[in-house]
Amino acid sequence: MSNRPQTPYAARVHETRLQTRWTDFDTLGHITHAAYPVYLDEARDAVLTATVGPFTEFAWVIAHVSIDYKREIVQGAREVIVRSRIAEVGRTSLTFEQYVLGPDGEVAAACRSVLVAWDREARAARPIADDERALLLR
Amino acid sequence: MSNRPQTPYAARVHETRLQTRWTDFDTLGHITHAAYPVYLDEARDAVLTATVGPFTEFAWVIAHVSIDYKREIVQGAREVIVRSRIAEVGRTSLTFEQYVLGPDGEVAAACRSVLVAWDREARAARPIADDERALLLR
Amino acid sequence: MSNRPQTPYAARVHETRLQTRWTDFDTLGHITHAAYPVYLDEARDAVLTATVGPFTEFAWVIAHVSIDYKREIVQGAREVIVRSRIAEVGRTSLTFEQYVLGPDGEVAAACRSVLVAWDREARAARPIADDERALLLR
Amino acid sequence: MSNRPQTPYAARVHETRLQTRWTDFDTLGHITHAAYPVYLDEARDAVLTATVGPFTEFAWVIAHVSIDYKREIVQGAREVIVRSRIAEVGRTSLTFEQYVLGPDGEVAAACRSVLVAWDREARAARPIADDERALLLR
Repeated sequence: MSNRPQTPYAARVHETRLQTRWTDFDTLGHITHAAYPVYLDEARDAVLTATVGPFTEFAWVIAHVSIDYKREIVQGAREVIVRSRIAEVGRTSLTFEQYVLGPDGEVAAACRSVLVAWDREARAARPIADDERALLLR
Repeated sequence: MSNRPQTPYAARVHETRLQTRWTDFDTLGHITHAAYPVYLDEARDAVLTATVGPFTEFAWVIAHVSIDYKREIVQGAREVIVRSRIAEVGRTSLTFEQYVLGPDGEVAAACRSVLVAWDREARAARPIADDERALLLR
Repeated sequence: MSNRPQTPYAARVHETRLQTRWTDFDTLGHITHAAYPVYLDEARDAVLTATVGPFTEFAWVIAHVSIDYKREIVQGAREVIVRSRIAEVGRTSLTFEQYVLGPDGEVAAACRSVLVAWDREARAARPIADDERALLLR
Repeated sequence: MSNRPQTPYAARVHETRLQTRWTDFDTLGHITHAAYPVYLDEARDAVLTATVGPFTEFAWVIAHVSIDYKREIVQGAREVIVRSRIAEVGRTSLTFEQYVLGPDGEVAAACRSVLVAWDREARAARPIADDERALLLR
């Protein structure tokens, strides 16, 4: 029996619309690689805020992020859409699966990331409570 | 007699060399406007650290910044040089005059800024002490 | 007789709502100085896009920006509002007056900036056409 | 016999020293997650510039980046060190292994990334030439 009870993608997909900025675009005329981690993080924050509360109540740090860049988003894109779902909730960590979509609806990047629930005073990981887990996987 | 001995450029000129980053350049192939405030701030911090100590000892916030953009710095510039001098030290504030130079030695931007000495606990302005003023204007 | 025929604020006030990002906030727990130029630029771009068209049709560069920082916007602010109006349109340049407001509706920063209409091929200033001027000052 | 002689770490280790910026640090008082991709990219660019030439001669885009965040780098760090080596050179891609070290010499983050040699005109991947491969793996 698994101690990872959650069906992959048990949790629902959240969609976050994010405004792009002039400074997100680089000399190649497309959204620069370094803007994607920012978008993905904003989307994770939106999901967590909507489920277990804002950062002041549910603090976290990033342990791992992996991004596949698939298509460029060229200059002129006023917003991107991030589709996020919580794929897994561990003892102290949670795993996100996310996609960044350009204005044409095509996937520009795919991301898997692991966050750790954070005790700001102790500056250390802390266990995720059962009620938090339930909210995260709803 | 004034206790604000602000002879223009009484203080010496500091030169700070700063590495550029890929993300500093925009779609127009030059350093984007928004990178200049960052460079100027790094240079101010370097000057203050070298005179009155690091931010942990001499905290400050920015009250005013005014930038004239004169020439573009095009893609390929690996560093910029910032020339800074403290033009004036007031009761709680100090005024910087700065120039950002590209690799060709030409002035790309000129800046005047006013900082306020900051009491981090009180989250408020604090008087600049006489010994600090002397160090700032040396 | 003035050669600046336009009543200050002849043009209407545009309001732009901008999402903040985690990376806009610094160690002092407030929106860092360097995020304001980015917000102000996004708002100018929104105003110009709404009046004379997107950057691909009406290109411009920044000649001058002056910012007064008045109040901090502390962590937790999910968006800022920028109020912008075109105060003046010259032969090749236009002047913006803008305010950045925090979620409490208070002015956090005031900005005056001068843009220059830009000929991307010539990489030089170009005259603003009469019909553009009319649209900018409507 | 393979023409992809990717002995792990055949290539030498490059060390790149990078200045931090105030804007790299976030409300938690440490270098924010989103600054690491920027550091890693600057280091890759330095390695490629030193081996096969600057971006104007050897253009590339990022296909994949994976980062493990291991330790925080707290406020006050004036520079970070990135250790980079090219682990593998494929037909059109190359793989980097990198470590970001804080001022204490400890590894703060580990990164694996895949770049694709880029034909800027065609906006598409291009084969890596034999002489480029030799230089990359030297």
